[in-house]
Amino acid sequence: MQTSLLLTHIGKLVQTRTVAPQRLAGAEMAELPCIDQAWLKIEQGRIHSFGLMSEPLPPADQTENLGGAWIFPAWADSHTHIVYDGSRELEFVDKIKGLSYEEIAQRGGGILNSARRLHQATEDSLFDQAWNRLEEITSYGTGAVEIKSGYGLSTADELKMLRVIRRLKEKSNLLIKASFLGAHALPQEFKQNREGYIKLIINEMLPQVAAEGLADYVDVFCDKGFFTVDETARILEAAASFGLPPKIHANELDYSGGIQVGVKYNARSVDHLEYTGQEEIETLLASSTMPTLLPSTAFFLRLKQPPAREMINAGLPVALASDYNPGSSPSGRMQFILSLACVNLRMLPEEAINAASINSAYAMGAETEVGSISPGKRANLFQTRALSSVAFLPYAFGENLVQRTMISGKWQ
Amino acid sequence: MQTSLLLTHIGKLVQTRTVAPQRLAGAEMAELPCIDQAWLKIEQGRIHSFGLMSEPLPPADQTENLGGAWIFPAWADSHTHIVYDGSRELEFVDKIKGLSYEEIAQRGGGILNSARRLHQATEDSLFDQAWNRLEEITSYGTGAVEIKSGYGLSTADELKMLRVIRRLKEKSNLLIKASFLGAHALPQEFKQNREGYIKLIINEMLPQVAAEGLADYVDVFCDKGFFTVDETARILEAAASFGLPPKIHANELDYSGGIQVGVKYNARSVDHLEYTGQEEIETLLASSTMPTLLPSTAFFLRLKQPPAREMINAGLPVALASDYNPGSSPSGRMQFILSLACVNLRMLPEEAINAASINSAYAMGAETEVGSISPGKRANLFQTRALSSVAFLPYAFGENLVQRTMISGKWQ
Repeated sequence: MQTSLLLTHIGKLVQTRTVAPQRLAGAEMAELPCIDQAWLKIEQGRIHSFGLMSEPLPPADQTENLGGAWIFPAWADSHTHIVYDGSRELEFVDKIKGLSYEEIAQRGGGILNSARRLHQATEDSLFDQAWNRLEEITSYGTGAVEIKSGYGLSTADELKMLRVIRRLKEKSNLLIKASFLGAHALPQEFKQNREGYIKLIINEMLPQVAAEGLADYVDVFCDKGFFTVDETARILEAAASFGLPPKIHANELDYSGGIQVGVKYNARSVDHLEYTGQEEIETLLASSTMPTLLPSTAFFLRLKQPPAREMINAGLPVALASDYNPGSSPSGRMQFILSLACVNLRMLPEEAINAASINSAYAMGAETEVGSISPGKRANLFQTRALSSVAFLPYAFGENLVQRTMISGKWQ
Repeated sequence: MQTSLLLTHIGKLVQTRTVAPQRLAGAEMAELPCIDQAWLKIEQGRIHSFGLMSEPLPPADQTENLGGAWIFPAWADSHTHIVYDGSRELEFVDKIKGLSYEEIAQRGGGILNSARRLHQATEDSLFDQAWNRLEEITSYGTGAVEIKSGYGLSTADELKMLRVIRRLKEKSNLLIKASFLGAHALPQEFKQNREGYIKLIINEMLPQVAAEGLADYVDVFCDKGFFTVDETARILEAAASFGLPPKIHANELDYSGGIQVGVKYNARSVDHLEYTGQEEIETLLASSTMPTLLPSTAFFLRLKQPPAREMINAGLPVALASDYNPGSSPSGRMQFILSLACVNLRMLPEEAINAASINSAYAMGAETEVGSISPGKRANLFQTRALSSVAFLPYAFGENLVQRTMISGKWQ
């Protein structure tokens, strides 16, 4: 097995940070350091060093001439739900026809539809389907991914989902984080008993998830029609007692207080954020919580757009993720997420690239491992043909420019 | 060389029309005939017959088992500008930064930027770049394409573009139509002399284009800030004397009268149509002109959306095309055009598929040759894996589902 690999004749090496920042905020987000005509040395699956082709090349066991191709750090996709059974395009059609949320739910749509299907699916089938999605997003340049539970909504089925994620972690060489999202929706059998479901999460699910070490984070959908700020706070306090830090689904449907409660409990990230005003921005400015935007969900569900421009101009960091799931974002192709960020959120290409690499790595607690071309980080990269500029990546919104992806030093 | 090919074990054969309709309007657009578990016989590059696997199979020189894969008719992309030099992502960034149309023009953006670059590019370089784009769109499932001139804006450069398109026609096995779009924008040197440019088009360009047989259609950008209804009418009358029927860029930026003048001169299609009201709909209902929507341009330029739903509900046909060009739609991946049609225009998946096949074939005058699985038409097809439904195609907005494309009976 190779121990060191030298990539030479890289046309442009993007996101080169000798000392990697934890995260980038405000005006820093528009800065994207790159080296033209570069080499990159990889050792034991990690980035060892990089430099200019005009300098002497370091020794290596193996050398590969990239002939001018460009290298980017692989995307970190910090918000996905890729463990699910089947697809939900019939609900997509129902929404085009203008059916209401209630009508769609009655016809078997929504999160509860995925929960029903997940309940019936075997763990092996769920694993195989999720594995295919992992391979798909890897081919599109993703090298780190966070995956949530939340289509179980019973103790047994939430554990089933989280065990599938554990198997994905074991078999895959991607960097994977698991989030326990028991509080994704109120299951049918608890419609008249909210308190009962909160107690089930706190007293039964969380202890078992923690005992089996199945999650890196706890997550709550804190929004209108889902879970309240008080319910969220109770779940986060219980999770804290098990050492599970929060990530929050917040402010997708209203000014829900989800951002504030997330910040209060030191959430690693608060995600969605279509409803973000001055108060929410100020709360975030005083925190270490990463605001994460999911522009494909706003696109696919025809929501109002989150105010990315106002957030960055106010000095905030912003991360981007795909929200890959069957109901509101059936795609994990991050290059297109960047296109949406530029077109619909008016983020600059450099801001979008930083948001989907360094900042999204931070949003999943993986900033020391991935997200930039920095010595010591995993050699998770992707290759494109020589482009006219980095802006071409979001500009070419329909074309997949990722030619191949490297994970821990190995081309996939 | 093979003379007949039998494809067997097709999981679903989509858009099967024993007698192909010219075009589909109103409620017909939601009807998409398909056959499950099918075979398809191709002879001399054309569709010979199709049927059920449960029936006796016809004889053929060669047989290929598709193992359940699905077959669609290749897309017809009836509106593109794929002959151009370079790309215009810097202008994309300027627009994100909020620069005005005038500022962008001053910094070298807009149609006139492409015209400057095209003027400097050699015919061979233009051909090579356009050829790469043809190969790209073929890989994404397009089997017929209309290509416009209009980055020349001088007699010599318009002829150069049209000769590139003629070379593409000669070398490619795609069905290609050429449109002469001298009236794409007023060139810099005629800014103070509109009449001079109109006369140049009528008295110099059109006769030469016609003499060399370089165009199938004439096109005019009839809209606010571009060409007026009267100017358009004069150009269309002159074109008619050379036997060139019109296709019109209309109502993208205002209620420009472009639809009405297009219909008056019996345009094959009027395209864009963001500004379409009741009067325009009634005009179109009394015509054989195809209303063609370009949803990626509305997306990329953040325009208001054309009223597809109102048009179809009123009984109109609608076609879809990509508008592939460097300024307002740098992609020709038709599957994503369908996603935009469903998400942003609220078209049903079946309507979108019909709009991008049968109706888009009509919009480029190719309805007898391509656009459906019908005996006698060219065997221009694409293959996907087995899907859960045809709605999955627009639903999976980020994923390219086209596995391979067949043109005139040959897998590309």
